[in-house]
Amino acid sequence: MPENAILDALRWRYATKSFDPTKKLSEEQVALIVESLRLTPSSFGLQTWKFLVVTDQSTKESLQKVSWNQPQVSTCSHHFILCRPATYSPEDAIEFLDLAAETQKVPRESFAGYEEMIGGFLGAMDGDARAKWMEKQVYIALGQLMTVCAAEQIDACPMEGFDATQYSEILGLEAKGLVPVVCCAIGFRAADDHAAAREKVRFATEKVVEFL
Amino acid sequence: MPENAILDALRWRYATKSFDPTKKLSEEQVALIVESLRLTPSSFGLQTWKFLVVTDQSTKESLQKVSWNQPQVSTCSHHFILCRPATYSPEDAIEFLDLAAETQKVPRESFAGYEEMIGGFLGAMDGDARAKWMEKQVYIALGQLMTVCAAEQIDACPMEGFDATQYSEILGLEAKGLVPVVCCAIGFRAADDHAAAREKVRFATEKVVEFL
Repeated sequence: MPENAILDALRWRYATKSFDPTKKLSEEQVALIVESLRLTPSSFGLQTWKFLVVTDQSTKESLQKVSWNQPQVSTCSHHFILCRPATYSPEDAIEFLDLAAETQKVPRESFAGYEEMIGGFLGAMDGDARAKWMEKQVYIALGQLMTVCAAEQIDACPMEGFDATQYSEILGLEAKGLVPVVCCAIGFRAADDHAAAREKVRFATEKVVEFL
Repeated sequence: MPENAILDALRWRYATKSFDPTKKLSEEQVALIVESLRLTPSSFGLQTWKFLVVTDQSTKESLQKVSWNQPQVSTCSHHFILCRPATYSPEDAIEFLDLAAETQKVPRESFAGYEEMIGGFLGAMDGDARAKWMEKQVYIALGQLMTVCAAEQIDACPMEGFDATQYSEILGLEAKGLVPVVCCAIGFRAADDHAAAREKVRFATEKVVEFL
């Protein structure tokens, strides 16, 4: 395997166990991560998500208590909460289709076929299936976010272990029409985080990849 | 927003509509993508996935017929099918825990607490919930895969629109204990792919990101 910057970044990253609470992302780093999130690809391009960012120390401490008490929540620089809308219907796609016509400077009518396809796709799903579909899109954002952080030598710790109901209460997410799907604490590793030195555990290529 | 290589890559990428069928990934590019997939982070590090790669032309053509007839399936260089295991139980984690002890050169007993945590996490989920959890992990791999391709100036087209049952039959996935979750056709854009020149449609930052 030849030397390569993106592979080096993926080898460098790890699920950070201990952040240095004195190290914060620069404004430029925050802008870069936010812009990368905004650019994330999604099903039909619909962007069925919202990304919340918590930096307030007391809010982070409240969230830590309902995140299996993982210290990364309060010691990270920026705690990202990747959310999906509570519901999504074909009508919600209209804003996207309007924007697409405007952005690409084409008549809105040229998206009629696309609109119908989206309607058919959504129409075949009940609320639970739509929720599952939206949550998968949010995980694309998570995967891209971790890769971008690694490329920028920014540390991250993805987190599924949190109480979504409590998060919703603390952050008033029901009123915003949002459901938290997964979190990612972002910042810089503490010098004494032993996890950084641990060998990454991955199965052999032969086990996880097969050429047919 | 300052110039930045990873943002440039994310702006360069798009869901490729038309691949140049004469352009194939080099062995080095395939090895890089495979290794990046292998390095993908996952819940508890369990790597509940398998990545299948199809290059055989007649197999790609059969798959295209059950992929809404999207031509990318047969014209791409490598068609990736990201799968999850049909089932996953705490016993399946043993292979990972054994590997972790071996890789990190620590006694297997030191993972007893971790093993218990994994058992508790899986024990709280029924088969459907475990499937949903595994599928989310696969989408982390998809997100990372698309980012890595972009960073390497390799084109990709993610695909949810395929008949999983037909894929399973064509590729004999039931016998392998696998369920296809999502696909990604990889290769190089055709010179006349009009989609490459279209402006990317993304909501404004204010709509998709909120600082709390």
